[in-house]
Amino acid sequence: MSSEGIAVQTPGSAAPRGRRSRRAVDVPDLVARARDGEARAVARLISLVEDASPALREVAAALAPHTGRAQVVGLTGSPGVGKSTTTTALVRAYRRAGRRVGVLAVDPSSPFSGGALLGDRVRMQDHAGDAGVYIRSMASRGHLGGLAWATPQALRVLDAAGCDVVLVETVGVGQSELEIASLADTTLVLLAPGMGDGIQAAKAGILEVADVLVVNKADRDGADQTVRDLRYMLSLGGRHELTGAWRPPIRRTVAADDTGIDALVETVEEHRGWLESSGEGHRRRAGRAAREIEAIALAGLRERMGDVRGSAALGALAEQVVAGQTDPFRAADALLAQL
Amino acid sequence: MSSEGIAVQTPGSAAPRGRRSRRAVDVPDLVARARDGEARAVARLISLVEDASPALREVAAALAPHTGRAQVVGLTGSPGVGKSTTTTALVRAYRRAGRRVGVLAVDPSSPFSGGALLGDRVRMQDHAGDAGVYIRSMASRGHLGGLAWATPQALRVLDAAGCDVVLVETVGVGQSELEIASLADTTLVLLAPGMGDGIQAAKAGILEVADVLVVNKADRDGADQTVRDLRYMLSLGGRHELTGAWRPPIRRTVAADDTGIDALVETVEEHRGWLESSGEGHRRRAGRAAREIEAIALAGLRERMGDVRGSAALGALAEQVVAGQTDPFRAADALLAQL
Repeated sequence: MSSEGIAVQTPGSAAPRGRRSRRAVDVPDLVARARDGEARAVARLISLVEDASPALREVAAALAPHTGRAQVVGLTGSPGVGKSTTTTALVRAYRRAGRRVGVLAVDPSSPFSGGALLGDRVRMQDHAGDAGVYIRSMASRGHLGGLAWATPQALRVLDAAGCDVVLVETVGVGQSELEIASLADTTLVLLAPGMGDGIQAAKAGILEVADVLVVNKADRDGADQTVRDLRYMLSLGGRHELTGAWRPPIRRTVAADDTGIDALVETVEEHRGWLESSGEGHRRRAGRAAREIEAIALAGLRERMGDVRGSAALGALAEQVVAGQTDPFRAADALLAQL
Repeated sequence: MSSEGIAVQTPGSAAPRGRRSRRAVDVPDLVARARDGEARAVARLISLVEDASPALREVAAALAPHTGRAQVVGLTGSPGVGKSTTTTALVRAYRRAGRRVGVLAVDPSSPFSGGALLGDRVRMQDHAGDAGVYIRSMASRGHLGGLAWATPQALRVLDAAGCDVVLVETVGVGQSELEIASLADTTLVLLAPGMGDGIQAAKAGILEVADVLVVNKADRDGADQTVRDLRYMLSLGGRHELTGAWRPPIRRTVAADDTGIDALVETVEEHRGWLESSGEGHRRRAGRAAREIEAIALAGLRERMGDVRGSAALGALAEQVVAGQTDPFRAADALLAQL
């Protein structure tokens, strides 16, 4: 973090992670500073949770009382549809409205996302020095539990730090997009004209997770056809038709020049209102928390399985079994209790 | 078990397992009767451990003080080399010496082994009414943890029931043979003349686990060649050469007419003596107990993972996380504690 207060933070631009994590950590102080909007403290907290540092649990406990406010908006779609550009345009729009914004750019395929993303991020430096914007690139490979682990934790940090809106943008394709969608209150599925994109999206199952469909680059040839394709896909029915509840609207944007962005923000707000009035918002958040708890519990159990395999206590218990002093079941209980 | 006291017991010849397991069980009484040599009680105990019945732990605890005496001899080798015939011949030899014998015939490929094995077993009815012999066919498919789970438990039953020797014979091929070998104090690898059997055995890695090499059907053409092949393989060195300890001897048998069987029993006794004097016997038993404890501990953890996935408590904890009353890590702890 430079003295100019540039809020752009990528793993590549920070000190080596291992070294950072091993430094002593004053968690209450960090959380207090993050809540005051200090970007450096936010960055440090995200690194701590992302690296599953020893302070992870203390951080999570300190954040908990301050979470639950942020509106999480996911952006997903094939490469080239303009997710980064749209994210940037949304950040501008939310900042005009005086809202504090966090951005998590998630690249599930990269061990560090500093490289490929940095070009896009440079544009975000419009917001350099703006304490109302926090931008973080996250990579998943090599981290404990991958995206499913790190992203919700980073969301909690941004939420506790007072972000009104957190935009979660995936760089990758496939399953990870659906994962990200499952983290969001509102999921925007982006498409661009041409290439039978609507049909591909339907095949990939990403229309299923869309709360709002965004046809970006709508000034290009074929935009009308893409909208018609999407309408047709939606008319084939799905959960929206069946529940009769929220029917995903289709919005056209040209994110590069902000065209349609204010209308898109308005649509997101409408969806937010529906989430609240219908109870679906609470249901989604509870489901998200349940998956998060489950992932942590499973990770803990997996760790214990590794401990069982490599346990030193096992030898002593085996001797007791050989001597007939205990049986293998009681020994297994004792082993698990010791770990 | 008929009133004639036929000790041959296969799953196929017993009442349906599920029903047997759900009957109320008087474990101390069963163990006492099994120790008195009552075949019916031994059969019931093996069914209880094999089916992972609710009484499994009680059975294991009741058996523990009475275990550790039996000598476990594994027989392995390709189909057709004469494992069943050799087992039968060994049973006769041990009975002539007044020793109590258990036989576990393990078929890892069959859901129940009553069928294919029964033909061989009929010959074993030489021993019908002989309370000094207990024979059990075991299948593994569909059972919790398969062979790795059930076989050591069945061994414990036969051990506690006072068998001096337990012969464990595999019907299958491949990896399971190595597993069985790992359960035995002394592993006999059987071969027959012809078919480059020695080379195949070397390729499959089963020479590595041999404590004694048995060339059965030694009256056939090619027996000398097979012995020469084996000598050559052994001369290529392996763990035996390196440790300079026990060098697996090669024995010739014609099990069908008991030729060479007494010499084979003598060799097994020599190996037993070496196991005791070298400490290797204790080391093997401790290693076996360790693997058994590990398998049980891992099975317990896997069960808890399933419980996490399907937990009803998860919903309530998720609500607490959404409300900021706790964090996902403490919630995961609470979830695991509740299971």
